[in-house]
Amino acid sequence: MFEVKSTDLAGRIGRLKTRNGEIETPYLLPVIHPASQSISVDTISNIGFPAVITNAYLTLKHFGDKAKEKGIHSIIDFDGIIMTDSGGYQILEYGEIEADPTQMARYQEGIGSDIAVVLDTPTGSSSNRRWAETTVKKSLDAAKLTLKLKKKDNTMMWSGPVQGGNFPDLVRTSARSMAALDFDIYAIGSPTEMIKNYHFSDLVRMVMTAKRELPLNKPVHLFGVGHPFTLSIAVAMGCDIFDSASYILYAKRGRYMTSAGTLNLEKMSYFPCVCPICSKWSVKELLESDRGIAVQELALHNLYALKNELDKTKEAIREGRLWEHVGSMARNHPKLWAAFLSLSRYSDELEEGTPLFKEKGLFLSSAPDEKRPEVRRFYRSLDRVTISKKKRIALILPETRDKPFLISNLYLNLTRAYDDILDQIQVCFIAPVFGLIPVEISDIYPLSQYVCSYPLDNHFTRVTIVKIKEFLARRSFKHVIIVDNSEDLHEVVKRLKSGVANATFVKALDIADDSDKLVERLNPYLSKVRT
Amino acid sequence: MFEVKSTDLAGRIGRLKTRNGEIETPYLLPVIHPASQSISVDTISNIGFPAVITNAYLTLKHFGDKAKEKGIHSIIDFDGIIMTDSGGYQILEYGEIEADPTQMARYQEGIGSDIAVVLDTPTGSSSNRRWAETTVKKSLDAAKLTLKLKKKDNTMMWSGPVQGGNFPDLVRTSARSMAALDFDIYAIGSPTEMIKNYHFSDLVRMVMTAKRELPLNKPVHLFGVGHPFTLSIAVAMGCDIFDSASYILYAKRGRYMTSAGTLNLEKMSYFPCVCPICSKWSVKELLESDRGIAVQELALHNLYALKNELDKTKEAIREGRLWEHVGSMARNHPKLWAAFLSLSRYSDELEEGTPLFKEKGLFLSSAPDEKRPEVRRFYRSLDRVTISKKKRIALILPETRDKPFLISNLYLNLTRAYDDILDQIQVCFIAPVFGLIPVEISDIYPLSQYVCSYPLDNHFTRVTIVKIKEFLARRSFKHVIIVDNSEDLHEVVKRLKSGVANATFVKALDIADDSDKLVERLNPYLSKVRT
Repeated sequence: MFEVKSTDLAGRIGRLKTRNGEIETPYLLPVIHPASQSISVDTISNIGFPAVITNAYLTLKHFGDKAKEKGIHSIIDFDGIIMTDSGGYQILEYGEIEADPTQMARYQEGIGSDIAVVLDTPTGSSSNRRWAETTVKKSLDAAKLTLKLKKKDNTMMWSGPVQGGNFPDLVRTSARSMAALDFDIYAIGSPTEMIKNYHFSDLVRMVMTAKRELPLNKPVHLFGVGHPFTLSIAVAMGCDIFDSASYILYAKRGRYMTSAGTLNLEKMSYFPCVCPICSKWSVKELLESDRGIAVQELALHNLYALKNELDKTKEAIREGRLWEHVGSMARNHPKLWAAFLSLSRYSDELEEGTPLFKEKGLFLSSAPDEKRPEVRRFYRSLDRVTISKKKRIALILPETRDKPFLISNLYLNLTRAYDDILDQIQVCFIAPVFGLIPVEISDIYPLSQYVCSYPLDNHFTRVTIVKIKEFLARRSFKHVIIVDNSEDLHEVVKRLKSGVANATFVKALDIADDSDKLVERLNPYLSKVRT
Repeated sequence: MFEVKSTDLAGRIGRLKTRNGEIETPYLLPVIHPASQSISVDTISNIGFPAVITNAYLTLKHFGDKAKEKGIHSIIDFDGIIMTDSGGYQILEYGEIEADPTQMARYQEGIGSDIAVVLDTPTGSSSNRRWAETTVKKSLDAAKLTLKLKKKDNTMMWSGPVQGGNFPDLVRTSARSMAALDFDIYAIGSPTEMIKNYHFSDLVRMVMTAKRELPLNKPVHLFGVGHPFTLSIAVAMGCDIFDSASYILYAKRGRYMTSAGTLNLEKMSYFPCVCPICSKWSVKELLESDRGIAVQELALHNLYALKNELDKTKEAIREGRLWEHVGSMARNHPKLWAAFLSLSRYSDELEEGTPLFKEKGLFLSSAPDEKRPEVRRFYRSLDRVTISKKKRIALILPETRDKPFLISNLYLNLTRAYDDILDQIQVCFIAPVFGLIPVEISDIYPLSQYVCSYPLDNHFTRVTIVKIKEFLARRSFKHVIIVDNSEDLHEVVKRLKSGVANATFVKALDIADDSDKLVERLNPYLSKVRT
């Protein structure tokens, strides 16, 4: 059973109940080698990884049927949750293995895995279309066969593999067919090569294509995302479970994980981390220590780095700051930035999980922040606002510093001075990115609280102008009065001059925030309405 | 003595030798209360803070002349480096104090501080111009007086205060006058209010204005920057020393520091940190613990968070990745993003410390990356490239995937096919942001290794076009042949059509990376040259 507790963007915090305990997601299962594991599972578990994954195919190779007698928990000496992989990765690496889906289904049940994976045929990233089609078909056949073999009374969970790789239509077909089968978890096949080659935008396309077809009430496993660097964007896409041997594989090559990328221990000067390992050693000391110890310590640091990124991402979901977190991570590499931009285009999916109201202000720094689900929702709600036909005049003012506008000094002064004609005037505020905001809705989230980066860049200026023009084009005001009293929005007002019909511009930069003088200066323009 | 070891942007790693040991900068001095310190200085020191700052004025109030007998090291029970502040902050807070610069100069010598601060009069952020002028003058007078009083044989270091606040011309005057005096350290006065109000762009202006006047071979102390959030940008501006009581002040209000901002412990769910404190407690446990313990533990976490950010920033300097690090931090808040954009305009200062060559590829994600010192340097070096007059034809090709271009398959094929006329053809590659690159210099850093985010956004597309046109406008080619064989740069090529005279465009999107076919397709255009 999978229960979703909190969401932001397409990301979620969930609880996956297995027969052997719960996993809180997003979660990364460290890979344990069934026969030659160098770091004890207990040590790994104590760092904050109470569930692990091991390989049923390698278990079969090393222990054969004996593993059925002992059970996988005894083999790797761990009584927590154990998921098993079935050899698919080995097929991807070596082309073929000495086992078939039927055998691996029975074997995983036999050794007592808590979560098992169908033996699929991964597509990989370099397949041609014909082979990709074959892998999708083979994986689907294996999935159907596995479910048929499943013992009724067995409480082990099964994960169904989605393949298709770089062919979106095949990913779609694969995900749709898999979704029709009753799996406990859905797994998206081998993004390993994409990640290795930094093809993060391809990863976004593959995952989002699959996610569209998969049920929202089931967890999604993305195979092999084992770096803090890419975790948050994968979570933001709605992936819940990850697995990776990278902590130890990287350590063996002297590679030190950070959220900003991988560093080479030999070239490092400082540990940019305060985990217990990095608090114990200096770089120099670790480099001078015995190689076995160095690998072990590096692997433990890598696990802490992964845990740290999982916790940062989870806390960001809880705080409603997943967009900021993914964006901040993305600035670390141009290809991750490209992936963030790709992700920002999946508006519907990102909106799905984004709460309607957030406690904290909305942040608008630069593109692609105008694509935030909160902004998009505002655009739609604006379309539904109707303005009385009596309101022949639009009075447009740049945003005030005190928010919401509805209770700003300026607006209160305006209502006092022009009380008698306000039924004929629609007061609107210019808000960056949002465009024009009728004052009556200015106290609704996120308009009540947002922070924008000033000076506006060209892109935000353009977006704001487009939105203002759209708003005005849909309403038929007889006159439009636009006040130019804000340095911050002066460029926007200036550029409105070519393009808004019936508009009068009121120069007022000299009196900026002085609401009394502003009200006075508007008198010649508004008193006309009285006559 | 101050020795700079590594630099990137205007930031540096340095070594400050005091009479009582060395401080590696950038460094933050935790504030210790001389009479009511709740966390032992040893505990703080063990976390990684071997030097602290305490307040000489408060010491005077609490201990009077007895402190001269005991010495400040014995009073706060710490034999490491102790800097003393002199009461300036108290003047800012309370308007006046019961001491004068002469008294505080003698007292700091008397109690045996390792580094002392002139008793200045901080400007603050809300001063009017007249008061700001007064504070600059009073601080300068105090500085001169203090240096006069300084005992010849005393090895204590002195720090000279720069004031002026929000008035750039006053900051300039103040820094210039202070720089003329022989201080060991220069301190930039009270940015506390700017930071509290998130006026980070004002902070950038104040610091950069001061930095322009201060000697590069002396460390700069920025008073009161005590949050991981703002540390990296302050370091990137060339500030070396910070001090703050925020670790404990925040803890007392239940505030938990992270690089992305401050969180309220009561509203947290996960610790996004793996420091020894956060590894020991869960949020729930800490909330349920005794208040005294919670404050203590929170303060220690805050110190770890500060140390973590210092180490991240130092490692970023060593890796040549300070730009990326500051940019990534800046995406956490629109006003920090605005400050990053402000900083990017101080090109000369940022270039000063940026190494000429870096081991790692240059990253170009989005604005303001085109303002990177490395890019700016390339523009200048391009101006110095001369092209033989014999080269009447410019052959312009989009960048190849394999770099440097000089040894790309495409270029090698070209040289083979058109060997006889290459002396008449200038081959150039289009590189995003850089513009046009004559193939002969394409193996020079950073052209040999850069990564750009594709698809190019509008801003980068425009920058690229402007640079291409600039390059062509300065050279008088008879013909320009522009090849359109790259999806990534198709938009750039398309937009070049209006604006490049004598240009022939060769459609080749269909053969993209096939260098044999490309060479063939160019034949009708290039063979003309032969005749």
